[in-house]
Amino acid sequence: MFSMPYASHMREVPSNPIFDLLPLLHTPGFVSLAAGVPAPESFPLSDIARIQSRLIAGRGAELMQYGSTEGYPPLRESVAVFLGRAGLYASPSEVFITTGGQQAIDLICKLLIEPGDRVLVETPTYSATLQILSSHLAVPVGVRMDEDGVDIGDLERKIIEARPKFVYLIPTYQNPTGRTMTPGRRSMAAEICERYGVLLVEDDPYRDLSYRGAAPVPIKTHDTGGNIAYITSFSKILCPGLRVGAVFAQPDLIEHLSVAKQASDMQSSNLTQAIVDAFLRDGLIDDHIEKICSLYRERLDAMLEACGSFLPKEVTHTCPAGGLFVFCRLPENIDTEALLGESVARGVAFTPGGQFYPKDSAHSNMLRLNFSSSSPESIRAGMKILGRLIAEHI
Amino acid sequence: MFSMPYASHMREVPSNPIFDLLPLLHTPGFVSLAAGVPAPESFPLSDIARIQSRLIAGRGAELMQYGSTEGYPPLRESVAVFLGRAGLYASPSEVFITTGGQQAIDLICKLLIEPGDRVLVETPTYSATLQILSSHLAVPVGVRMDEDGVDIGDLERKIIEARPKFVYLIPTYQNPTGRTMTPGRRSMAAEICERYGVLLVEDDPYRDLSYRGAAPVPIKTHDTGGNIAYITSFSKILCPGLRVGAVFAQPDLIEHLSVAKQASDMQSSNLTQAIVDAFLRDGLIDDHIEKICSLYRERLDAMLEACGSFLPKEVTHTCPAGGLFVFCRLPENIDTEALLGESVARGVAFTPGGQFYPKDSAHSNMLRLNFSSSSPESIRAGMKILGRLIAEHI
Repeated sequence: MFSMPYASHMREVPSNPIFDLLPLLHTPGFVSLAAGVPAPESFPLSDIARIQSRLIAGRGAELMQYGSTEGYPPLRESVAVFLGRAGLYASPSEVFITTGGQQAIDLICKLLIEPGDRVLVETPTYSATLQILSSHLAVPVGVRMDEDGVDIGDLERKIIEARPKFVYLIPTYQNPTGRTMTPGRRSMAAEICERYGVLLVEDDPYRDLSYRGAAPVPIKTHDTGGNIAYITSFSKILCPGLRVGAVFAQPDLIEHLSVAKQASDMQSSNLTQAIVDAFLRDGLIDDHIEKICSLYRERLDAMLEACGSFLPKEVTHTCPAGGLFVFCRLPENIDTEALLGESVARGVAFTPGGQFYPKDSAHSNMLRLNFSSSSPESIRAGMKILGRLIAEHI
Repeated sequence: MFSMPYASHMREVPSNPIFDLLPLLHTPGFVSLAAGVPAPESFPLSDIARIQSRLIAGRGAELMQYGSTEGYPPLRESVAVFLGRAGLYASPSEVFITTGGQQAIDLICKLLIEPGDRVLVETPTYSATLQILSSHLAVPVGVRMDEDGVDIGDLERKIIEARPKFVYLIPTYQNPTGRTMTPGRRSMAAEICERYGVLLVEDDPYRDLSYRGAAPVPIKTHDTGGNIAYITSFSKILCPGLRVGAVFAQPDLIEHLSVAKQASDMQSSNLTQAIVDAFLRDGLIDDHIEKICSLYRERLDAMLEACGSFLPKEVTHTCPAGGLFVFCRLPENIDTEALLGESVARGVAFTPGGQFYPKDSAHSNMLRLNFSSSSPESIRAGMKILGRLIAEHI
């Protein structure tokens, strides 16, 4: 219990229960389908070791010193080039480096949100975004989505009704559903947000994890008015421990973000930024993405097959073409929050679906499965246990 | 100009002009006495290179993966041990790692501040703290200080009058003045904050930069009620580019900070945390601190001597026993903001004093000098130019 008088003033930010599950990942034999983490065996450690030695020997003093808030200048250039993969044409001055993609969402809130402001999100959406919104006392308003992404009619209606400060979308291999928004809806979403003068935040960290052909081009490619902020990240396609993400937006917004970042962590680590920069400049990213995609494709196949084989027929699930997640709907009477305890006791963890929805919308019968950080054998073993447990509850 | 409709809602955080001066540091012949940066030639690059190779080879996959929001567990332990240098006895569970010490201030604001809340600060105080407070719409209230640190009578009066959410002090080799609070005032400040139930944030990044004997023990050593949050940093005594700072506070506060950090950048880079951890565990920090202290002692001596030799007698200045800064008071008619342009044109930069004060208190005749990042010869050359320029204005 918190006993100091100042505690009564303290803002209550809901904790994210996924973090509590992280230690389980290291328990031998335990199958964690919970966290959204990349496969550690995929990390290009020998490349990173070589790059690090070269960097410290060649420009160590510069990297260990204070640097630029907007980002390590060479990395801003190489990210601009990297965005070309997605069909985006950015200049380095339109690229802003963040301490992980997640910081971008926090800084955008820091700039725009006053307590009580509304923000539109897909239902379901990334749980940490809901947590960030809550920490800024913003009110998330859910927009309906289906297999083709967010419902465009509902998006427009909610923009008119809720007058949101911004719209937050994860259009590609969405977290938690794995769904991808169609090309048609992408251009319509861009057009609507521009028409109403609403900032659209496109969070796109999974784009390059494509296992069934390329993803549709980003909504940002339809940005004619400068009102789309595009977030990318190297956490999923390289290493999350480096904490390097980036925003591609118009220079005015980046100037504001930079001032907000000065007043947060001042700048991201030069060293980890320079490692990502060198990895990009050495031309290693394409091969690395290909390698992890072939690893994850096999795991997605194993997961979908296991869903078919082991989950009771009352359970439905999404069929993603990329990313890290499959999302399941269980019969209404099953509370996945309660189920998690039993499941962990049997050696399998998943993420209950409730945390991916704004508070007012109860979805206690959903759960999210991650397939990237377990081998196909582990996935099958874990899903067999989970399937049996669910069957017992039906 | 920012043209989008959403721009009109954007919070105006004042930019910190120090950042604009950073590029000048790299211009040959230019003397920057402006930024508060450590001497790049002091960075222990060969130690860092060796440590990095060892870390990637030994625990690369763990360091590249997501980690703990509270901090890399071994670093929490080694920081707890490191705090013993200052006479502080912390358990690892009371240590929380941040992306630079500055993030700690931002997270504390994120937890506690509602728009319009007051925070007590020394006058003058660290400019980035004023910027962070402004970004949270907090109102800084200045407490008087003299050569012995903050005025205790004024502190108590302002606590009663302003009912602040917290008190922010830099008691040791303060930024920007270089002043150090006396032991007696430290225990009184602790006692007063506890009596009124106010959180005291003790920001102590300069403590180990002692050039005339050890600094008084932290205010935190007098913390009997658990209401002092102590911030330390490895930016000044190791390398700022690593972005590693830490908070020592009671576990309840750390739990709250951790949730706030989940909703900011999720966690700091494991890699840079592990580098600091290894540097501490290898027992390298004591020798390194001794080495930079002997470097900076010589520079402080050169700076104080140059102040005596080159500044007109109308200029008074502080005489710090440690840290990175000397603070000068010029005749009232000189506006140091205006003076800076002329000074830069002659090849010397300093930091105008105005930005170290809450907005309502005009102090346009002060300036801050940094001595850590220039050689004694550069300091003498720069101060000669600056002294002549000031004399022309008197």
